[in-house]
Amino acid sequence: METMSHNSTLFSDVAMNNIESTHSDVISITLFVAVLCLCLVVGHLLETYRWLNESIAAILIGCIVGTIILCTSKWKSSRLLRFNEELFFIYLLPPIIFNAGFQVKKKQFFHNFFPIMLFGVAGVLISTSIVAAGSWWLFPKLGFGGLSISEYLSIGTIFSSTDTVCTLQVLSQEETPLLYSLVFGEGVVNDATSVVLFNAVQKINADTLNGQTALRIFLDFLYLFTTSTVLGIAAGLVTAFILRGLSFGKHSSVREIALMVLVAYLSYMLAELFELSGILTVFFAGVLMSHYSWHNVTESSRITTRYAFATLSFIAETFIFLYVGMDALDYEKWKMSTLSFGTKMALYSTVMFLIAIGRVALVFPLSIMSNYMHRSGGESSKISGHHQMVIWWAGLMRGAVSIALAFKQFTHSGVTLDPNNATMITTTIVIVLFSTVVFGFLTKPLVDYLLPATDSNANRRNPRDPGSPKEDMTLPLLSLEESASENLSRAKENMSMLMDRPVYTIHSYWRRFDHTYMRPIFGGPCTNESSC
Amino acid sequence: METMSHNSTLFSDVAMNNIESTHSDVISITLFVAVLCLCLVVGHLLETYRWLNESIAAILIGCIVGTIILCTSKWKSSRLLRFNEELFFIYLLPPIIFNAGFQVKKKQFFHNFFPIMLFGVAGVLISTSIVAAGSWWLFPKLGFGGLSISEYLSIGTIFSSTDTVCTLQVLSQEETPLLYSLVFGEGVVNDATSVVLFNAVQKINADTLNGQTALRIFLDFLYLFTTSTVLGIAAGLVTAFILRGLSFGKHSSVREIALMVLVAYLSYMLAELFELSGILTVFFAGVLMSHYSWHNVTESSRITTRYAFATLSFIAETFIFLYVGMDALDYEKWKMSTLSFGTKMALYSTVMFLIAIGRVALVFPLSIMSNYMHRSGGESSKISGHHQMVIWWAGLMRGAVSIALAFKQFTHSGVTLDPNNATMITTTIVIVLFSTVVFGFLTKPLVDYLLPATDSNANRRNPRDPGSPKEDMTLPLLSLEESASENLSRAKENMSMLMDRPVYTIHSYWRRFDHTYMRPIFGGPCTNESSC
Repeated sequence: METMSHNSTLFSDVAMNNIESTHSDVISITLFVAVLCLCLVVGHLLETYRWLNESIAAILIGCIVGTIILCTSKWKSSRLLRFNEELFFIYLLPPIIFNAGFQVKKKQFFHNFFPIMLFGVAGVLISTSIVAAGSWWLFPKLGFGGLSISEYLSIGTIFSSTDTVCTLQVLSQEETPLLYSLVFGEGVVNDATSVVLFNAVQKINADTLNGQTALRIFLDFLYLFTTSTVLGIAAGLVTAFILRGLSFGKHSSVREIALMVLVAYLSYMLAELFELSGILTVFFAGVLMSHYSWHNVTESSRITTRYAFATLSFIAETFIFLYVGMDALDYEKWKMSTLSFGTKMALYSTVMFLIAIGRVALVFPLSIMSNYMHRSGGESSKISGHHQMVIWWAGLMRGAVSIALAFKQFTHSGVTLDPNNATMITTTIVIVLFSTVVFGFLTKPLVDYLLPATDSNANRRNPRDPGSPKEDMTLPLLSLEESASENLSRAKENMSMLMDRPVYTIHSYWRRFDHTYMRPIFGGPCTNESSC
Repeated sequence: METMSHNSTLFSDVAMNNIESTHSDVISITLFVAVLCLCLVVGHLLETYRWLNESIAAILIGCIVGTIILCTSKWKSSRLLRFNEELFFIYLLPPIIFNAGFQVKKKQFFHNFFPIMLFGVAGVLISTSIVAAGSWWLFPKLGFGGLSISEYLSIGTIFSSTDTVCTLQVLSQEETPLLYSLVFGEGVVNDATSVVLFNAVQKINADTLNGQTALRIFLDFLYLFTTSTVLGIAAGLVTAFILRGLSFGKHSSVREIALMVLVAYLSYMLAELFELSGILTVFFAGVLMSHYSWHNVTESSRITTRYAFATLSFIAETFIFLYVGMDALDYEKWKMSTLSFGTKMALYSTVMFLIAIGRVALVFPLSIMSNYMHRSGGESSKISGHHQMVIWWAGLMRGAVSIALAFKQFTHSGVTLDPNNATMITTTIVIVLFSTVVFGFLTKPLVDYLLPATDSNANRRNPRDPGSPKEDMTLPLLSLEESASENLSRAKENMSMLMDRPVYTIHSYWRRFDHTYMRPIFGGPCTNESSC
């Protein structure tokens, strides 16, 4: 009887808590959305004066709001929302990655497919190995031990996902198309790869690291990578086929848009259901949808999908940076870590150093490899020394994905009671803040110094904005306009290149296959061989 | 000690259930989204042959899928998802209503503001009183008693929200602009009003109905209505002001779209926070945004917002009808009701009869009142007898809002164990199915009979599709194209009408005020007096 009453008290307590938490949730969400709006306006004002980019603005506003909350809540909490990794991985990350796939410049992406994949996939493997091995070797020497092998591997993947937005904002797509496409492509593929590798590491949960475990992680990674890619490609092709076959547009653009959104979401859910990587699936669904489906829909659907997906992605990213800014002031986490100030500083420097070393080990060798494969392609398809420096720099910044993976690894719904975990979370936050704010500020001077010939001031584009209003009516596939003479010279070049360059041969085979078999079935522009 | 272990077993059970339910949730959601895609495709194919509309298609597919699930689950359940009223009221209804406000033809809406409000607000009050009083008087006579006064009032509001989509599909906006605008306007305002009135009834929770309670409900309704409207208008004006003042578009269409979406959501959350009606708030936020903000943004933002909101609304509506179709086969609910077959049939007929009577009591007197106020406005602004019949008929159909309110009143998260509640849920489902499917089929012949002069076949428009691709580049405010001579004659008419028609005088004052003070501050087209 006593148990019963005790239980019922417990349950009514829980119920009361729920009601209260629901009401405070509404307040938190309302405030958060209001702060998001503020971010938009402030970000716009700051950008007008070209001071900062949006990420930095969101982080700074997050810090300010965090301070205010910290003061009003009497040093209890600096956050409006508790971090929910579900929220991040189910609602925020998929639109960002899908949009990246959807907005990717297909022509440049397919043209530079091999170097992008080299940097995005092989690069992550190299960077992860170096950061993981380095932290395993150096952390105990700094007096920060007690992490498992599996955690070191996770740290490797956490610090291997880059955020290239800052660099893209100061690069000119017209002046340095190869560089722009490599930085953009690597940034996108790299995010998806890091998440897949992170999941592979989580799955294996290695206690000791030997050749066999590494092989298992690698095989698991390969399996996840290929199956997820195939699922994404299938989703994209099915959408294109339905849209082409039924020509919805005759009656309603709304149905076309709805179908694209629903199939994208469906492919993500299917991937999660089969325990694959939904992120990679939506990325390739996005690429395929914009490569084929996009050409089977009405003009309004094209504009709408393009901007609606970009907006979703933009809101999700701002949300994350705002959250990071608020979380940076979370008093509890800083207090919980038992390390001294000096050790902490050493830890941050070590991680930053490992990231830089990891980038050196991936950018320069892979650039040489890419240049070797394109050895007779002329200067335009080679990655010069200065360009390699820019690629190296672009990948130093860490962003939303690092934060999300760190929270997934080291907290339970945003809360941790373990000092080691708290240290790793704060380290990740410091790295993200430092690299985004400090390196973000330095990017423009550096790029101006390394690429002096390009008038990057005049041609600077905002990568979040898929195009100026005037450009809307042109095909984004052709957004890299080429003059007829360029086309002609490139066609001649192609003929000679075909002989001795394996990469170009494969790319050219793909283009022929795409023309002859894929586009007639799935749709796409086919008026002019060189413009396709 | 025993209690402890018992508790921990209980908790681990709960945890296990959670994990299992999460996995089965993923399967359900995946299947549901797949069925939604199927609905899209089938709905499109059916519409190509002009057999059915989307709602009927979704309901029928829902029934078929429900049957399949019922068979595979061995008569356990016919649903993929358990109805969650939170889901409906927080995620599905707001986009539908916001979109209705956003897409409403402002010119026609403001022009016919008074008759629309008369039908949409006063009409709901009349219809609710009649259905509530009629069911209170007739239900016990049929052998179905045991409902409280508060429940009868809820039944009144549940069966007062109309679904005019079927009728709009066969009306021609060009041939009968007044009729189209009245049917569309009533349908939209009516949904919001029903929800507000429902909430007012819930709040008062009357045990006995007397003059005082009725007055309290009415005052509460008035309070909710005005405050929610003011909040929505404020949100719309703030957005317009920010967009105009900062001209985001120069840098990024994405920020404009994001701001519109976020402020719409924020206004909804604020309304919920202050315990107002979020539905009404987003409706007016939508109207104001498209009246002012829409003119301060880039062309791409206009197209994107227009189609993206329409798509969201479309998906939400299809989702609801699909759910209704599946839920119609929920074996448990039908079994639970203790009434005989004859009583049930009598109950359904009674409700249908009360709905019809309620419409008679609102449409014809209010039409006469509207005609009286426009007594010297010429034939074009009078509601003819045939038009009154069409308005009456259009409001006979019941849709998503009725279902949602019924679930909110009579179930707890979609489940009910009380026979009376189960009966009311099944009654609502039967009414919605019957009115949508049977009346939906009959609408075209009836409208053809009542409005023989209009060539409704040729000009039939799909109201879900905000416009044909060609129309995209024109202003929707002007979608009712008028020739110059028409404008001229209307202007002359206006001058004489101003003298003796109070409604027109107010409307004309509003237009002058809008021109002189509002548009310079909040934006809008001001090139031509008569086209604004």
